[in-house]
Amino acid sequence: MRVVPWFLATSLLVAGPSLAAQHTTTIPAKAIATATQLRETALASHLGYDIAESLTTEVGPRLAGSEADARAVEWAQAKFKALGYDKVWLEEVRFPKWERRSEHGAVVGAHAQPLSLIALGGSPGGRVEGDVVRFADLASLEAVPAGSLAGKIAFIDFHMERARDGSGYGMGSKVRGSGPSAAARAGAVGYLMRSAGTDSHRNPHTGITHYADDITPIPSAALGAPDADQLTRLLARGPVRVHLALDCGWDGETVSHNVIGEIRGRSKPDEVVLIGGHLDSWDPGTGAIDDAAGVSLTMAAGALIGELKQRPARTIRVVAFANEEQGLYGGKAYAAAHLGDIRKHQIAAESDFGAGRIYGFRSGAPDYAQGAVKQIADVLAPLGIAHSPQEGGPGPDIGPFAAKGLAWASLRQDGTDYFDYHHTPDDTLDKIDPEALAQNVAAYAVFAYLAASADGDFGSEAKTVTPPSE
Amino acid sequence: MRVVPWFLATSLLVAGPSLAAQHTTTIPAKAIATATQLRETALASHLGYDIAESLTTEVGPRLAGSEADARAVEWAQAKFKALGYDKVWLEEVRFPKWERRSEHGAVVGAHAQPLSLIALGGSPGGRVEGDVVRFADLASLEAVPAGSLAGKIAFIDFHMERARDGSGYGMGSKVRGSGPSAAARAGAVGYLMRSAGTDSHRNPHTGITHYADDITPIPSAALGAPDADQLTRLLARGPVRVHLALDCGWDGETVSHNVIGEIRGRSKPDEVVLIGGHLDSWDPGTGAIDDAAGVSLTMAAGALIGELKQRPARTIRVVAFANEEQGLYGGKAYAAAHLGDIRKHQIAAESDFGAGRIYGFRSGAPDYAQGAVKQIADVLAPLGIAHSPQEGGPGPDIGPFAAKGLAWASLRQDGTDYFDYHHTPDDTLDKIDPEALAQNVAAYAVFAYLAASADGDFGSEAKTVTPPSE
Repeated sequence: MRVVPWFLATSLLVAGPSLAAQHTTTIPAKAIATATQLRETALASHLGYDIAESLTTEVGPRLAGSEADARAVEWAQAKFKALGYDKVWLEEVRFPKWERRSEHGAVVGAHAQPLSLIALGGSPGGRVEGDVVRFADLASLEAVPAGSLAGKIAFIDFHMERARDGSGYGMGSKVRGSGPSAAARAGAVGYLMRSAGTDSHRNPHTGITHYADDITPIPSAALGAPDADQLTRLLARGPVRVHLALDCGWDGETVSHNVIGEIRGRSKPDEVVLIGGHLDSWDPGTGAIDDAAGVSLTMAAGALIGELKQRPARTIRVVAFANEEQGLYGGKAYAAAHLGDIRKHQIAAESDFGAGRIYGFRSGAPDYAQGAVKQIADVLAPLGIAHSPQEGGPGPDIGPFAAKGLAWASLRQDGTDYFDYHHTPDDTLDKIDPEALAQNVAAYAVFAYLAASADGDFGSEAKTVTPPSE
Repeated sequence: MRVVPWFLATSLLVAGPSLAAQHTTTIPAKAIATATQLRETALASHLGYDIAESLTTEVGPRLAGSEADARAVEWAQAKFKALGYDKVWLEEVRFPKWERRSEHGAVVGAHAQPLSLIALGGSPGGRVEGDVVRFADLASLEAVPAGSLAGKIAFIDFHMERARDGSGYGMGSKVRGSGPSAAARAGAVGYLMRSAGTDSHRNPHTGITHYADDITPIPSAALGAPDADQLTRLLARGPVRVHLALDCGWDGETVSHNVIGEIRGRSKPDEVVLIGGHLDSWDPGTGAIDDAAGVSLTMAAGALIGELKQRPARTIRVVAFANEEQGLYGGKAYAAAHLGDIRKHQIAAESDFGAGRIYGFRSGAPDYAQGAVKQIADVLAPLGIAHSPQEGGPGPDIGPFAAKGLAWASLRQDGTDYFDYHHTPDDTLDKIDPEALAQNVAAYAVFAYLAASADGDFGSEAKTVTPPSE
C-alpha cells in the first residue's frame, strides 16, 4: 500500500470541509488589502495594552479557583461586551483546587539565614528539616538508589538557559515536574530546586508539579537564583541544614469557566477562527506577561476586526481559557466540548508566551493550505515576522484540541526575557512594552482576519495527531 | 583682622602634626613606585571578592543588634586575624534595638490583592486600615492641614532619579525619613511610600525612618515600584482601601562593636590612615553591596599592604563600623572614642556606596597637602579614576569625625545601579562584579599606602567644620 500523508489519506474518507482539501486554499485580494490596513490600525492602537492594564490592575493575581479567578471571569465577560463582541458566554471547567497560604525556608545552625523560596503548585504543606543534598540536574537525582536520601532535602541546582524560543524551559519545567517525585522516591523529606528561570533576582518562580502515584508527596519549593547560589556556596563549606515550612495544598474540586466572545462572520458565521490566551495566573505576580498579554492582545485583535466596515466571512472566536497553569484544564475542556464541531474550526492560535515581539509565523496546515499561509505571512512580514515553517506549535490550550485534528498556527514571540519574570512576583504590567504588544495585536488581527476570509480550509478534522510542542 | 582659611588659622595655634601645615606635604618617589606595583597586584587579586563572599555567605543578613550581627563581629575579628593583621580589637557601640518579624499589606474590597511592601526601619508594628491618599512628593504631604488625613493612609509616590553619583537618594531618603512624621501630623493612621530606589522589581527598599517628637509613630512601609504604580492606577479608578499589618518595633538597648584591624606602620606606627566600611546590613538581603563590599575591599587593601616587603611609615587601620544603617552609631562612637587622638589620624576614607568602579578622587585636605593628593591621583589615574576636586565627601561613618576636624578623602564609586538593589532582598553577592571590586581594592590600597607614606600631614586636628555630604 502506498503511503500518503495523513491529511490526504483522511481527506478521501470524509465529507464536508475536507473536500476542499482537494483544492488549494487561497485568500482573496480584497481581504489582503483590508488586512494590510487593519495591520496599520492595530499597530497604532493602544487597545491591547489598555485591556492588559485593566485585567492586571482591577483583578490582579488570579490563581485558578480563587475568589480572584471568579472575578477575572466576570471581568472577561464584561470586557468582551464592552468591546462590542456579538456573543459572550461561559463554558464550565472543573478542576481540583490548590491553595497557597504561606511559605518559609531558612538555613539553620551556624550560618542561619532565611531563604527566598516559593512552594510549587501542587505541593502539600508541611514542616520538614533536613540536611541538603545537591544535584546538578534531574538525571543525577533520578540515578540515586531508592531510600538513599532518607531524612534529607534534595536540591536540584539546574541552571536553565536563556533562549529566544524559550527552549531552556523544556528541562527547566521537567526539573519542576519530575524532581519532587524523584526526591520522594529516594526517601527525601523535602525538595528544593533552583527556579526554572533566567534572572538573578530574589523573586523565585513557582509553577505546577505533579507527584507520581507510587510516592507520598513531599513539600516542594523553588529557590530564587541568588538563594540557590548561596546554598551551593554554603554546601562547599560543609553540611547545610534547612528548615522548610509550607502551608498550602489541595482542597476539593472547584469550577471556573472558559470565557468566550465572538465577532460574528459575514457569510459563514458558524465557522470560526479561534484565538485566545489563558485567564488564570499564578498568584505571586499579577499575571501580566502570563497571560494577561495573551488574553488582551487576542481580545483587542477581535475587537479591531469587529470595527471593520466589512466583517470577514467567518466568525472570530476569542477564548480566555480557564486554569491553564495547573494542567491545561480550560484547553482540555474546550476540546472535549467542541470535538463534535471540530470542522467548524477553521484554524486556531493561542498567545501564551509573554508580550515580546512576534518574529516567526507558521501553520501545521496541510500542503493545500500552505499557499494561504504564505499569503498571511506576506502581510505579517512588515511587522518583522518571518515565515518560519520549522518552528513553533499550537499554544498549550490549543494543544489538546490540535492533538485531535484541529488546524493551528503559531505566532512565535521573542521570549528572551520571558523567563526572567514568568511565574514570579515580578510578572507585573511594567514588564509589558506597549509597542511590542501592539505589534502582537496587529499580527493576530491580520492572521485571524485572513484565515477567516480564506476560500477553503486549513485541514481541521477529527483525527489523532501529535502536534509539535510550542 | 585678615581673614585666612580655617586650616591656616588653626595651624598657627597648635603644636604637633599641624606644624607641618607650614610645609608642603609630599610623597617620596620610592613610595610612588611601590604603590604603582601594589596597584597592579591588587588589580590581579581576588581577595576583596573572596572576603565579600565569605561575609555574605557565612553570615548573610546582619541587622544591627541581631544574633547575626554578633556573628558578623566574630567573623570580622577572625577574618582580620586570618588576613595577617597585626592587631585586632573591638570597640563597644550602644544603640536601641529594632526588630522585624513580619509585614503584610493588601488592597481590600472589589480589587482585593496583596501588595509587596516592607516595613521601614524604626516603624512601630500595628494593624491599620484606611483609604489611601496619594501625594506626588513630600512637600505636597507636608502642605496638608493638621488632622486632614484622619483615618487615612498617606502614600507618597515620589519617583527617585537614577544618577551615577546617587544624588537622587537625597530626596528619596528624605521621603523615607520625614514622610511618616508628616503623615502622622496630618492625622494619617499609616504611611506608604514608593521605595527609594531606581528598579522596577518586586523587591521593596527598606531603610531607617525617624519620627518627630511631637507625633505618635504610625506603621510605615515602602512599596515595590510595581506596587506603587498599581496603587496609583487603582486610585485613578476610585477610592482604594488598604490593610497594613506590620509586626516590628523597638525593644530596648543593645550592644554591638566596631571591629578594628591594623597593619602596623614601619616608622610612625602610632599614626594611622583609616579606611573601612560598615559591618551591619539591612535584613532582607545579604548586604553584599551595602556594605560587605566596603568592608571587604578595605580589609583586602590593608592585607595587601601588609604583604609588601616594606611597610609604609604609618599604620593602616581598617574599621568595620557597627550599625551604620540605623543612625551612624558606629561612626559616632568611633569619633567620640578617638577625638582625643584625632591628630594621630593622618586621613580617613570610607567605602559605602556599593561595588561599582571608582571614577573620581578628591580630599578635603588643606592646600599644603593638595600636592600629595595630586600625587595619589596620578597613581590612581590608570584605574580610570579622575582627580575631581569638586565632588564627594567623607563616607557616612567618617562624617561625624570629619565634622570634628578629621582629614578625609573620597573615592567616588559609580552608583548608577546601586539603588536598584540597595536595602532590598536583592542585595546579594551576584550583584558584585569581581573585577570592579578589584579595581576598588587597588584604589584603596594605593590611597592608603601613599597617605601613610607621605612626608607631612593632611590637616587632621580638632575643629568644627561642615564636611560635604557624600
